[in-house]
Amino acid sequence: MTNKALGSRVWINGEMVDAHQATFPLADRGFTLGDGLFETMLWTGWEVRFFDAHMARLAQSAEALGLQLPCSVEAVKAGLNALAENAASSKAALRLTLTRGNGPRGLAIPEIAHPQLIATIAPLVENTSTVRLKTVSIPRAIGTPSARFKTLSYVDNIIALREARAGGGDEAIMLGTNGNVACASSANLVIRYKGANLTPALEDGALGGIVRGRLLAVGLIEEAHIIPSQLAQCEDAALTNALIGVRGVAFIDGRALGSGRIWCQSLTDALDHV
Amino acid sequence: MTNKALGSRVWINGEMVDAHQATFPLADRGFTLGDGLFETMLWTGWEVRFFDAHMARLAQSAEALGLQLPCSVEAVKAGLNALAENAASSKAALRLTLTRGNGPRGLAIPEIAHPQLIATIAPLVENTSTVRLKTVSIPRAIGTPSARFKTLSYVDNIIALREARAGGGDEAIMLGTNGNVACASSANLVIRYKGANLTPALEDGALGGIVRGRLLAVGLIEEAHIIPSQLAQCEDAALTNALIGVRGVAFIDGRALGSGRIWCQSLTDALDHV
Repeated sequence: MTNKALGSRVWINGEMVDAHQATFPLADRGFTLGDGLFETMLWTGWEVRFFDAHMARLAQSAEALGLQLPCSVEAVKAGLNALAENAASSKAALRLTLTRGNGPRGLAIPEIAHPQLIATIAPLVENTSTVRLKTVSIPRAIGTPSARFKTLSYVDNIIALREARAGGGDEAIMLGTNGNVACASSANLVIRYKGANLTPALEDGALGGIVRGRLLAVGLIEEAHIIPSQLAQCEDAALTNALIGVRGVAFIDGRALGSGRIWCQSLTDALDHV
Repeated sequence: MTNKALGSRVWINGEMVDAHQATFPLADRGFTLGDGLFETMLWTGWEVRFFDAHMARLAQSAEALGLQLPCSVEAVKAGLNALAENAASSKAALRLTLTRGNGPRGLAIPEIAHPQLIATIAPLVENTSTVRLKTVSIPRAIGTPSARFKTLSYVDNIIALREARAGGGDEAIMLGTNGNVACASSANLVIRYKGANLTPALEDGALGGIVRGRLLAVGLIEEAHIIPSQLAQCEDAALTNALIGVRGVAFIDGRALGSGRIWCQSLTDALDHV
């Protein structure tokens, strides 16, 4: 059981350790119960992009789950920078994982928990090709922590992506349990519909993505309740997340969209200036 | 990061190892994404109760998620027995965890996966007191793998239990996303309603519990679509799972039920003869 998938070093609770020694105990609730959170961030080659926004989301989600960060935001920043400066590629994906730490058997949250914070880095293969979206049967469960926060309980999204791939898609479009369009398995969705740039509302099961938040903040996109028939009629579409930024969609459920290149570029450009 | 919560030994992919050495790689998808399954079984002092039923459920769930067991059922049985025969207490909780193993960044399932199978044991504190149930706001997401199977993505149930405890309950009653009664955070529900023994249907978000399955098979309980107002009027109620067997419910949302002792005992007795 090696750690080939990781870089040469990982950061655990403020300390840098060799990746081949990087293990966690079997009693960690992140492992036994998916009890934790994560953030995926882009190392641009010189900085962690949107670091403050990622840490703000992590802090807010942690508070909702009753989790504490075991070290300061400054220590996290130093750790991520140290990891990245040793990375081979210029761009890289940084992942920060917060777990509730060890616990006895059962679901009850230990009165005294020892949360664990782990940072890892992975090379990022740039891929700017447009994607094919496929609407899948697995819903986003409105009102659950796993839909509202970026928790370690990700199996539904994994199986949603698998369903999309089996149907010839690159990414899944998941609907909320109310039937409205929610988001992709690991990205938010923006559509151009009757000239407006719309993104599914959080109440419909969308995850509150960092890039999505930036585009909303500058008024380039707006939240809406999007029903599947509107998705089937949109003029353009794009996916957004911290690693890909904005990426154009070529097909939705087999329907070809316009190239949308200029439209996507306008969103990407805006992102560079927020 | 110690393993105090585990016994002195754990079993990993067919080998017994010291618990203090029992760690896992950080790139394991069970840890990073909740991508795996588990079973919790009762060691009665002389056997693993309902072992065949647990393994059948695990195999069926694994097939649905595209996971393979890395060793034979016979090897698992030998491992569980070896763990249990060294346990201090006569009764114990055995947990079998199946993960998809290491993977690179992202949700896509590796073409060649190396699933990991881990067995641990924990002492079981017998508790026969009746429980107080509290209906919570966090739903069971009908149609998702995390609601249909016993996956490692358990955060919604953890927060459901936390909400119940904060409201003075011992266990949570979760409703399906369709509004019908589903199950508790780590048990199935049986109610006595107008003289019939009813348990929520799988289509309403109930997990297919082993004890629930046994009681259904012998015709002692029947599946039904139970709405909250029926729960509020039931004559008796019980929780079932592999560790507690059948346990009486004293209160539902503050309403006291009859002692139900004779009724519960009839279910328990039936379980001993199936």
